[in-house]
Amino acid sequence: MTNSAVREYVEANRERFLDELKELVAIPSISTLSEHQADLRHAAAWLAAHLREQIGMDTARVIETGGHPLVYGEWLQAPGKPTVLIYGHYDVQPVDPLELWKTPPFEPTVVGENLYGRGAVDDKGQMFATIKALEALKATGGFPCNIKLLIEGEEEAGGASIAQYVQDHPSELAADCALILDTGMVAKGVPTICYALRGLTYLEIEARGAGHDLHSGSYGGIAPNPIQALAWVLADLKSRDGTINIPGLYDTVRPLSEQERATLERQSKQLAPGLMQAAELHALPGEAGFSVLERATARPTLEVHGIRGGFVGQGAKTVIPAVATAKISLRLVANQKPDAVLELVRQRVAELAPEGIELIIHEHHGGEPVEVGLDAPVLQQAVAALEEEFGHPVEFERGGGTIPVAALFAAVLGQPVVMMGFGLADDNVHAPNEKFYIPNYYHAIRSVAGFLSRVGG
Amino acid sequence: MTNSAVREYVEANRERFLDELKELVAIPSISTLSEHQADLRHAAAWLAAHLREQIGMDTARVIETGGHPLVYGEWLQAPGKPTVLIYGHYDVQPVDPLELWKTPPFEPTVVGENLYGRGAVDDKGQMFATIKALEALKATGGFPCNIKLLIEGEEEAGGASIAQYVQDHPSELAADCALILDTGMVAKGVPTICYALRGLTYLEIEARGAGHDLHSGSYGGIAPNPIQALAWVLADLKSRDGTINIPGLYDTVRPLSEQERATLERQSKQLAPGLMQAAELHALPGEAGFSVLERATARPTLEVHGIRGGFVGQGAKTVIPAVATAKISLRLVANQKPDAVLELVRQRVAELAPEGIELIIHEHHGGEPVEVGLDAPVLQQAVAALEEEFGHPVEFERGGGTIPVAALFAAVLGQPVVMMGFGLADDNVHAPNEKFYIPNYYHAIRSVAGFLSRVGG
Repeated sequence: MTNSAVREYVEANRERFLDELKELVAIPSISTLSEHQADLRHAAAWLAAHLREQIGMDTARVIETGGHPLVYGEWLQAPGKPTVLIYGHYDVQPVDPLELWKTPPFEPTVVGENLYGRGAVDDKGQMFATIKALEALKATGGFPCNIKLLIEGEEEAGGASIAQYVQDHPSELAADCALILDTGMVAKGVPTICYALRGLTYLEIEARGAGHDLHSGSYGGIAPNPIQALAWVLADLKSRDGTINIPGLYDTVRPLSEQERATLERQSKQLAPGLMQAAELHALPGEAGFSVLERATARPTLEVHGIRGGFVGQGAKTVIPAVATAKISLRLVANQKPDAVLELVRQRVAELAPEGIELIIHEHHGGEPVEVGLDAPVLQQAVAALEEEFGHPVEFERGGGTIPVAALFAAVLGQPVVMMGFGLADDNVHAPNEKFYIPNYYHAIRSVAGFLSRVGG
Repeated sequence: MTNSAVREYVEANRERFLDELKELVAIPSISTLSEHQADLRHAAAWLAAHLREQIGMDTARVIETGGHPLVYGEWLQAPGKPTVLIYGHYDVQPVDPLELWKTPPFEPTVVGENLYGRGAVDDKGQMFATIKALEALKATGGFPCNIKLLIEGEEEAGGASIAQYVQDHPSELAADCALILDTGMVAKGVPTICYALRGLTYLEIEARGAGHDLHSGSYGGIAPNPIQALAWVLADLKSRDGTINIPGLYDTVRPLSEQERATLERQSKQLAPGLMQAAELHALPGEAGFSVLERATARPTLEVHGIRGGFVGQGAKTVIPAVATAKISLRLVANQKPDAVLELVRQRVAELAPEGIELIIHEHHGGEPVEVGLDAPVLQQAVAALEEEFGHPVEFERGGGTIPVAALFAAVLGQPVVMMGFGLADDNVHAPNEKFYIPNYYHAIRSVAGFLSRVGG
């Protein structure tokens, strides 16, 4: 059903489509760092102008928020046809450690079949593929259905603004389904639909001891040490066998069916070698009794993302620091609630404070887990579009990551959420040398066009 | 016995003595940071020139080493009189966290009765007091005994150069006793002689997981996390009850006599409130069954001095880092050997490596513990000089810190080591806002002069 005209249009505009993406990736729109505020506005304005001038949406505008702006575009000139709400994000992760990048993160560089740069795949590349699909449709016969497009700039920073906006504007965003390209493929050449995502609660634990740094010659053996305290707390929160020791945490986890567990076990055998290779690991340790993919997508986890305290310069300093901090997050699965989990963590951490140490919790952000029913007609239309594009059966997978807005679209707007992913395991998402496998950029453009054509009938 | 002429000379030169010390403290001679190499040379040259021109030593020179230079001075024109080898160090600790300093660390500032600045008391202030004592003696009748003076620039960085030098030049450094001013007082107004010091072994544990940073959305629950690994290792090395879990570590610890333990318990009652107040602490937790001072001076300890890994910037990043490191040290007591302890730590850490994590140990430096017999005549001469100066009985104490050269003087040169200390508990040694209580500067000058006069008979 994919229009051969769309194929030809994409082929004819191959280079320009890539150049435009490079232009977008070159904008250092890191949402968690305040010094990049102007870059985020630049990216938003660039996208709004592009939607207006290049794609021909009815309307395309930057929406101010308390944080980074949203970009909203719409084309609603197909009365009687369904409406698809397309979501993406233009913000990216920080780039440190910068010294591990082989090419500068904001100088997008093609090496072989890959485009390297921060945001190349997460999510600028995938998000921009939806826009290029719209362009191809518009240029070859017009949009087949009504389109709403909502792009945020805080996905990597908690997404508070879009969460507020979705809750405040349900009728403006009303649609028959949502389409999100922000996930991955189980393997190169295997079209993949993600039907479940994990939630998240992110926090920082600050351990405070003395009023100032002390000398271990005078205080070694008698003063509380905030780094040692964090070590005890982190070790008590998670055992060496991968169990998270937070009373109540596992109580609300929905048990998987035997069939789901078997699928995850099969996918684990298929994917574990690639996951190990991509990470340069010889083992994937974790909670006993669960397959690799079950642990990575269907079990709650606790990970430490950063820790700092005391003297970390060159050489030796025998200080007992006054303070140390650790950033941690828990990934959540249905039916865990971020706020409830945060409260469990608070209670547990309070119990674990060693003598003489004050533990302070700083809350960052959370996101709900999401699961989408496989029987929705739009999901079947996505399957058809992907299978035509790839000539390979679709694999359904659970994602280990978090797209808080997917839960909002499902819960607040009541829309089935279609998540087609085009990232590969070795795309270095959130890490140095992030890349997008360029053939997947064009696959994504054509798949989205095929999907929208099917939705439009 | 202290010459009243010495008292008058010190009084008449009060301001100049303080100004000269400020000049020395202003030199940022941080031995562990390579960018300060020129500052260390500057400090050494300044001292050698001062000894030659101002103090009138026979010889005073900078001695090149593989690391930072030594300063050596001597005056040997009192045949038949004893020789005293005076030791000090001109290097200082790093100053971070700089933002906690109320005055710039290398702009020495007098506030009330204190001189603030890095090195004000450790050890520039105390070391320079010995030099000013020599000046006062020279100006008021001449040196009462033979003098050798050896000042190093690597005390805070392991002291490898002086260790080598002492071993290579025993006859050049031959003396009847050594005098070190690099310790503290049990309380303001209470003259204190330190008769035991702890040793040290310092190392860094590097935990390596994946080949690059990973995204916890993809790898949370399956990838080894180097920060979590360090937390497990640190928690396994030291229990919440303060016990160090390294097999064999306690085997070589010399048990204290009941009298020593009783003295430490008495001193603990006296000193614990001040130690807590100075550190702004409400508890001094640690190994059960041992008094505060026994834990701080006569028990081995393990402290984490610094830790780093992953994302520690502003905001949130859901990374699983590839690497994390912790700097730790163990303070040692008689009869523990730094090299043997390091080997025990290596063995234990190797056992503790979690699956998928490589633990690499980087060795920094070590120092032997030392204990001095209380019956040596020079120790009694030091007692007499201090009791005359302070009008208060001397307190004998064990020090919790490490002066590796003291062990060398005792072991290699066979000299009794006299350690008079003039630092106070709230002097913020090794921490921001280091200071020297100025009256103690003059006490130190007069006490050293009184001691040398007594040694000279």
